[in-house]
Amino acid sequence: MKRSIPPVTLLLILAITCSTALARFAKPEDAVAYRKAVMQVIGRHFDNMAGVIKGRQTYDKAAFKADAEIVAVMARLPWEASLVPGSYEEGTTLKEKALKDREGYMAVAKKFEAASQDLLSAANDGDLESIKSKFRMTAKSCSSCHKPYRK
Amino acid sequence: MKRSIPPVTLLLILAITCSTALARFAKPEDAVAYRKAVMQVIGRHFDNMAGVIKGRQTYDKAAFKADAEIVAVMARLPWEASLVPGSYEEGTTLKEKALKDREGYMAVAKKFEAASQDLLSAANDGDLESIKSKFRMTAKSCSSCHKPYRK
Repeated sequence: MKRSIPPVTLLLILAITCSTALARFAKPEDAVAYRKAVMQVIGRHFDNMAGVIKGRQTYDKAAFKADAEIVAVMARLPWEASLVPGSYEEGTTLKEKALKDREGYMAVAKKFEAASQDLLSAANDGDLESIKSKFRMTAKSCSSCHKPYRK
Repeated sequence: MKRSIPPVTLLLILAITCSTALARFAKPEDAVAYRKAVMQVIGRHFDNMAGVIKGRQTYDKAAFKADAEIVAVMARLPWEASLVPGSYEEGTTLKEKALKDREGYMAVAKKFEAASQDLLSAANDGDLESIKSKFRMTAKSCSSCHKPYRK
């Protein structure tokens, strides 16, 4: 007969796993530096795409796709670093609300991830009207996180 | 009969294309901020992998692969921002030598790109000995750029 693991032990294992993941940031300021760097890169490539959407740059399928790819890859990265206790005071615009309301924060974070994936799909297809629509959805998902969680 | 484009015109088109690409960084400090952010993210995920290679972390195939993927994607990003005139004085560790010796700089940059792709392939296969060897090659390619081009 297999011995089953008691639920309390499972919870403990889960807690250790999560804290190991978070422990990758030895200090809160490491988490701040990392998430700011990720946002800096996302911002740059998002701006590149905005230039096309707003008509400041001509649409080039390959270049647009490259920007969309980077944003889609990086959209997964900032969240772990955003949930590190003690990382909301110095040199950051993120409110501690993110940690306190982790579920609400992760819900909007996941919306941004999904929207950036949809934008990448549209960029792969290359239909500019669809790209514009998906870009606006992605921009909306940025705002819906920035409004409640940014200082 | 098709009219051919004179070589001088072609060179001019090429020059305009290149300067348009560089013009994405409106100010030299934008280029500095961008390349530093890219290096910060690469450094974090490289450190994660180093923890495994040096035995500080246990090897987890999926986690290692995720780190290798991010490094491989981001390895393409810093170079354009590294070749912006006027971006070598303030808040940067990059020497102007990168711009003056563009060919030499890009040769080591491309070696890092290739090494990080090889590392990703090894991470996908999941053979730890091969991963260790490719990791060391990638680390070597970092140094071979940092030594001549970093202040």
